[in-house]
Amino acid sequence: MALYRVTLAYDGSEFLGWQRQKRGRTVQGELEAALARLSGGFAVAVAGAGRTDAGVHALGQVASFELPRATSGDELLRALNGLLPADVRVLAAAAAPEGFHARRSAGSKLYGYRLDCGGVPLPQRRRYAAFVPYTLDPEAVRRVAALYLGRHDFTALASAGGQVKTTRRTVTRSEVRFEAPGLVYEVEADGFLRKMVRSMVGGLIAAGRGATSVEELAHRLAARDRRGWPPPAPACGLTLVRVDYPVLR
Amino acid sequence: MALYRVTLAYDGSEFLGWQRQKRGRTVQGELEAALARLSGGFAVAVAGAGRTDAGVHALGQVASFELPRATSGDELLRALNGLLPADVRVLAAAAAPEGFHARRSAGSKLYGYRLDCGGVPLPQRRRYAAFVPYTLDPEAVRRVAALYLGRHDFTALASAGGQVKTTRRTVTRSEVRFEAPGLVYEVEADGFLRKMVRSMVGGLIAAGRGATSVEELAHRLAARDRRGWPPPAPACGLTLVRVDYPVLR
Repeated sequence: MALYRVTLAYDGSEFLGWQRQKRGRTVQGELEAALARLSGGFAVAVAGAGRTDAGVHALGQVASFELPRATSGDELLRALNGLLPADVRVLAAAAAPEGFHARRSAGSKLYGYRLDCGGVPLPQRRRYAAFVPYTLDPEAVRRVAALYLGRHDFTALASAGGQVKTTRRTVTRSEVRFEAPGLVYEVEADGFLRKMVRSMVGGLIAAGRGATSVEELAHRLAARDRRGWPPPAPACGLTLVRVDYPVLR
Repeated sequence: MALYRVTLAYDGSEFLGWQRQKRGRTVQGELEAALARLSGGFAVAVAGAGRTDAGVHALGQVASFELPRATSGDELLRALNGLLPADVRVLAAAAAPEGFHARRSAGSKLYGYRLDCGGVPLPQRRRYAAFVPYTLDPEAVRRVAALYLGRHDFTALASAGGQVKTTRRTVTRSEVRFEAPGLVYEVEADGFLRKMVRSMVGGLIAAGRGATSVEELAHRLAARDRRGWPPPAPACGLTLVRVDYPVLR
């Protein structure tokens, strides 16, 4: 068996998310189907670094899998892009070192969120940016972003139902860039709980429009209190930008 | 009757183009249907500045029409955006001076074309950028863009079937900006023939990849020879950016 690592970009608009499901179109499902065809029907199980939700996009999702026969990264890239639908592309493919696992080996992940604020939403941005019909207070937005930095128990920002050993995560980057017609939020951490980034953006929006205060959010975060945390922002604004791997031991 | 002018943005991906057709979804058709609902069933005929083809987008299409009853621009904007599908938005609406006609009064139009070159096409750009799997020679591309400047008979770049009084047009801007992962082409003229911008881009691509020479294109343009002009570039890369109106006489 030969182990591979691929980097993927996808438009999440027409997927039910990353993870294979019994019914419906998923990125993992499409990738596994393409790999099975490449391998003459051999069932290939793919591990993904991040389990993106329905409607969430990727520019740098990473997946790993084993193939029955060795091939070059270039050949694998070309063959997969010939079989995959146009809304998923393999950007890079290479043999992976023994023991590599896209999710378990990951060191950190970087997500980007695009939010357009006020005015009329541009149709050309509706698949890749969320829209709120008001402008946000930049100072409040920046203060909430700073609140997320560091090591916290993020229970207040996680949706129920995930199975995780710990709800503590370390956020190493949490930056807001105001760019007409809205903002881009970038957040990097050693891992994210379910709906955590979208809940973080929900917090930015709620404080930015004055529906809650930065102090109130700080209190709820510290209290690990899910009730009353602002609702998660829409999936369409979210992109998994990059997954970093420590130099393998 | 009260005359209005609206500025529209649309995502052309799921339209058969601007112009109303017997079957199928068009921007004019959606706008006229929304105006008919607003006017209690009164049939409103809309004139558009540019008859964009299927798949072509707009950030600044202009349309004019008469309504049986006067209303404010703000009210009209809100009411239309409440009725139109999400892939068309009214960005501005105002009463228009007597005699205004979106197409006949137009002074010049600016189109933008986004072309991604080489590498793997990003799924997130596939609706709004065309893709060619090779890099282009910047010098050749710039020389072809310069060729279009000024007053020419553009018969060589027009698709058959349009009914126009003259095939002469004056191009006042023809600029290429190289921006990873490709280029943006901007062209402004006092009017465009059918498929003219896409044929212009076809010329940029053909010379940029070395399939033809700038001299050959210059010759075909001067000879008004449609045969052998490179094929038009795909619709998805094209956006009607702006329509300018001279200060009304």
